[in-house]
Amino acid sequence: MSSRLFRGWLSRQSTLKGGRGMPLTEGTRSNRLSWGLRMEHSSASVPAALPYYVAFSQLLGLTVVAVTGAWLGLYRGGIAWESSLQFNVHPLCMVIGMIFLQGDALLVYRVFRREAKRTTKILHGLLHVFAFIIALVGLVAVFDYHKKKGYADLYSLHSWCGILVFVLYFVQWLVGFSFFLFPGASFSLRSRYRPQHIFFGATIFLFSVGTALLGLKEALLFKLGSKYSTFEPEGVLANVLGLLLVCFGVVVLYILAQADWKRPSQAEEQALSMDFKTLTEGDSPSPQ
Amino acid sequence: MSSRLFRGWLSRQSTLKGGRGMPLTEGTRSNRLSWGLRMEHSSASVPAALPYYVAFSQLLGLTVVAVTGAWLGLYRGGIAWESSLQFNVHPLCMVIGMIFLQGDALLVYRVFRREAKRTTKILHGLLHVFAFIIALVGLVAVFDYHKKKGYADLYSLHSWCGILVFVLYFVQWLVGFSFFLFPGASFSLRSRYRPQHIFFGATIFLFSVGTALLGLKEALLFKLGSKYSTFEPEGVLANVLGLLLVCFGVVVLYILAQADWKRPSQAEEQALSMDFKTLTEGDSPSPQ
Repeated sequence: MSSRLFRGWLSRQSTLKGGRGMPLTEGTRSNRLSWGLRMEHSSASVPAALPYYVAFSQLLGLTVVAVTGAWLGLYRGGIAWESSLQFNVHPLCMVIGMIFLQGDALLVYRVFRREAKRTTKILHGLLHVFAFIIALVGLVAVFDYHKKKGYADLYSLHSWCGILVFVLYFVQWLVGFSFFLFPGASFSLRSRYRPQHIFFGATIFLFSVGTALLGLKEALLFKLGSKYSTFEPEGVLANVLGLLLVCFGVVVLYILAQADWKRPSQAEEQALSMDFKTLTEGDSPSPQ
Repeated sequence: MSSRLFRGWLSRQSTLKGGRGMPLTEGTRSNRLSWGLRMEHSSASVPAALPYYVAFSQLLGLTVVAVTGAWLGLYRGGIAWESSLQFNVHPLCMVIGMIFLQGDALLVYRVFRREAKRTTKILHGLLHVFAFIIALVGLVAVFDYHKKKGYADLYSLHSWCGILVFVLYFVQWLVGFSFFLFPGASFSLRSRYRPQHIFFGATIFLFSVGTALLGLKEALLFKLGSKYSTFEPEGVLANVLGLLLVCFGVVVLYILAQADWKRPSQAEEQALSMDFKTLTEGDSPSPQ
């Protein structure tokens, strides 16, 4: 699904004239000089390097999902719900939901720059819902597997981090929904909460990556034990998967961290928002 | 050392008049209105919540070091160089160097707001040197221990991540030194590299926290094995240590991520920097 979204975005970029290569800072400065005329053009322009970074993140994300599938298929007997293979549903669902889809949901505001803010918001919220449902299936799988086998639950660092990050993810979604999609919250309330939402969103995503690494390590040590130190092919493949997970996390964080790559406000959003006054202040004579 | 620095900082804050409680945004706005007069006051003002967050980060960091020591003392026989206890030097040194001191080095620009930039830079660089040397001792300890015991090196995900993050940390220090402390680099080169240095600094720190979690998990699973699932006291303590490590990482990242908490430029720095033109533009008549 994500690659389809990305293709659609790329094709839209090719229809823009003069958008590529223009640094956003210049666009921002132009807005201060002749705000009304330049706004639409500035909203449409895409920083030159952004599409390549997004493409690289998607390539990494899909590779992470594929390598997880390959690991489970080659060394763990594949996936099934009604057998001891049920455990394998857990890593696959968690990687698809809590890593790949969660990461892509964070990138929505960088990728969809021309769409109405409400559309982008709904897509951001929906991707998180898909991620949450898939992760929930992964959670049910491991608890059900433990129950059938009579194993203890929630004793390891991986499980503690996992439950914590899953609850935080759910709370973040609920709070985000009630502030940004539910119509009650005021502009000032939204703009005060926005930086917190972004910070905790990125933190929960990175915590999810860390929790996946712990789970991978646990699965390896329980099965391989001392054979891990003989560079068994499964161990090497899983280590590579771990590094790929780290790379995906870093690339998503890098895209989010570039101030110039943030989605610029559209003209009508700025006219409505509290930022309007601040933005136009530069054009008015100084109160001095 | 870090707590001493922090005490010094707190005592300096108490000598400031009117500095506390004044939001930085107001200070920034005042600079645009009457730049020359207000600059010194604005540079001195400290965001009201920052000292509490820094204090909390130090409390967490020291707790992490103490709990690591308690874990090694209570369940691993303590620390020594010339015995099989040599392994225990590794987790303690890595937690002190790559977690606590590295985290504190990142906070230097938030804590020392009135000192000359060069002094702050040197302190930032020095803390990283201390962190690096302590981590190097921790690395030598584990390689030496493996050699004496005839164990294989660098087979696990923890070791791959560990070597990678250690090399990245060294490279980041070298590049940072050559750009910011070595006198050759121009202002424009420095200001172009600065955001990359900050991003990769924070990323390497978080990667260090993730690597520590993997190491903790490895140490637990190798020793406890299936006893881990019976909620052995060592397992519970180590899980708590893991969560404390995550909390320290999140609090340091939170302090770094607050735009209003960044160290404001001092008057003489601004006069010299490339930002000078942009800052004063707001006071000049609009070119329109």
